[in-house]
Amino acid sequence: MNRISDNPVTTEALSNHRDIALAHGGGGQLTDELLRQVILPRLGNDVLSQLTDSALLPPSWQNRLALTIDGYVVTPWRFPGGDIGKLAVCGTVNDLAVSGAQPLALALSLIVAEGFPQRDLEAVLDSVAATAAQAGVRVVTGDTKVVGRHQGDGIYITTSGIGLCPPSRRLGLDRIREGDMILVNGPVGEHGLAVMLAREMPHVHSVLRSDVTPLNHLIDFCAQQLGDDLLFMRDPTRAGLAGVVADMAQQTQLHVTLEEFSIPVRPEAEHAADMLGLDVLEVANEGKVVMVVRGDAANRALDALRSAGCEQAAIIGCIDSKHDGMCELHTTIGGRRVIAKPYGEQLPRIC
Amino acid sequence: MNRISDNPVTTEALSNHRDIALAHGGGGQLTDELLRQVILPRLGNDVLSQLTDSALLPPSWQNRLALTIDGYVVTPWRFPGGDIGKLAVCGTVNDLAVSGAQPLALALSLIVAEGFPQRDLEAVLDSVAATAAQAGVRVVTGDTKVVGRHQGDGIYITTSGIGLCPPSRRLGLDRIREGDMILVNGPVGEHGLAVMLAREMPHVHSVLRSDVTPLNHLIDFCAQQLGDDLLFMRDPTRAGLAGVVADMAQQTQLHVTLEEFSIPVRPEAEHAADMLGLDVLEVANEGKVVMVVRGDAANRALDALRSAGCEQAAIIGCIDSKHDGMCELHTTIGGRRVIAKPYGEQLPRIC
Repeated sequence: MNRISDNPVTTEALSNHRDIALAHGGGGQLTDELLRQVILPRLGNDVLSQLTDSALLPPSWQNRLALTIDGYVVTPWRFPGGDIGKLAVCGTVNDLAVSGAQPLALALSLIVAEGFPQRDLEAVLDSVAATAAQAGVRVVTGDTKVVGRHQGDGIYITTSGIGLCPPSRRLGLDRIREGDMILVNGPVGEHGLAVMLAREMPHVHSVLRSDVTPLNHLIDFCAQQLGDDLLFMRDPTRAGLAGVVADMAQQTQLHVTLEEFSIPVRPEAEHAADMLGLDVLEVANEGKVVMVVRGDAANRALDALRSAGCEQAAIIGCIDSKHDGMCELHTTIGGRRVIAKPYGEQLPRIC
Repeated sequence: MNRISDNPVTTEALSNHRDIALAHGGGGQLTDELLRQVILPRLGNDVLSQLTDSALLPPSWQNRLALTIDGYVVTPWRFPGGDIGKLAVCGTVNDLAVSGAQPLALALSLIVAEGFPQRDLEAVLDSVAATAAQAGVRVVTGDTKVVGRHQGDGIYITTSGIGLCPPSRRLGLDRIREGDMILVNGPVGEHGLAVMLAREMPHVHSVLRSDVTPLNHLIDFCAQQLGDDLLFMRDPTRAGLAGVVADMAQQTQLHVTLEEFSIPVRPEAEHAADMLGLDVLEVANEGKVVMVVRGDAANRALDALRSAGCEQAAIIGCIDSKHDGMCELHTTIGGRRVIAKPYGEQLPRIC
């Protein structure tokens, strides 16, 4: 689920684009506008309007049951490090996990274009099965539709998941305050860049692979280690790390500072981002989690991540005393720049 | 979710069609083969392999929570009597309801093609909102993806739903036995025929409208009236009434007899089926439920349906003493014919 922006600067954009544009699906400001101007006025309610990654149903409804859904339209459907099947399971498991929920079960909907090779469908399902096993969750229901050869694009998957949120796990933007610290579990930008390279420059040889992986076991371990000091989590998918921190600043109206030299980025990701003309901070990840923890728990959080195998996990920023809703990056060369949410579609169809 | 067939006659078919064919999405025998040969070998488990309309999670998991998912690719997206938004809510609510569950919440995933008019998206969402209100259920989470202009076909919706099954409500094919009676809540075939007419013969004027409607309140009322005498329900969507009764006979290995003169069909549906060369029993419904009840409760069931406004509800058949897994139709002119599940795609993209 995308989140909403309160930025009034671009409210005219949707009326200037009366047809849906690719950029409306990019996870940036245009997606926010679609949500705010078109979707929420029709469907909004106290749960949906929170626009969290999973809906946490109120306690009277089944002790905080989490429900999430995501459509996957990535092209090519197979990319270095994964495929649409692995992505569909990880995306849903991770949306549950960052909401504090332990996944209970998945539902899988396939929309396949006529002529899609059966062996490819089998490969996708093998990947779904392997990834679900890795995450320790089962696909318990599903549906398959076939559309005409020219009416779809290979295969689309929509995955829905339910999970249970332990009553003791209290996560939310409302718990964030001055002095809290921000961590990430490893190098950023690799999913989006690996998919873009595979699509746009298939002739380029790169060791870059998508980071797509289920995070539920890692997150569960950290949550146990950190207890009430774990305040908020989000997986930086579409719109990347920039999207998450900009959203966080805007919604809390606190000031977020990131230290560029602390943000882990692999050299091959830097090179790919340079080649493609992209900002690695705005590119989607599918195996990363941004955690906000109490300041005095930051080293404990880092130790927990590292002991769970995230060797490149890092403390990347903090919540400052200003109350301006801005996110600022201290760059490696000593400068400062504001991190905003990307406007529209930077990278179409990467998830 | 489609169900599986044990019919061995056509097991070669999938290997003869190494690419996915439209017929694999038709809800008939080819869909069964795709399920049996491709999907279940990879993802099967004790819940998924039951292939019910909703997965009922075992009691140790949250007191029989139901989870369902369905993709909707209907074209045209707006048809007489409804549109893809209404269909997406009804299909999911009804899958929960026929499983005995009361809907708790819905999740909505949109895959929209670039260039789809915003006013049409708004109309679809208005329809989602109105239908959800009618069913008394809320959309609590969602996702939107946009694909290229030529990579999708207007709009696809995948809806997932969760529901709670009252502990007292025991429904299942295993409860069906000789002497049980079969009912339907009204005239059949209207959804598929209305969509096909709108698509194939837009110049033909017809009063035929899709029957698409949420059934949860009706089903809840009947379940309360019938208690333990309500044995099994299924909504006859893709593959129609024929698909449901053929499946029921095959899976129980009992003999099902239907009386053609008892099956409610409106004259305009008869005419449309004749024009399109279709068997009205094999055409999808989106506001119908097939109920199996104990023989001595059949009139009570009929009274319950009629008192809830289903004036054309009818007792249409019974479970016979033979144990041959066949379904037989006693025709109006005194003949008999076997009702089999349609083989492949009779009507593409009607839901």
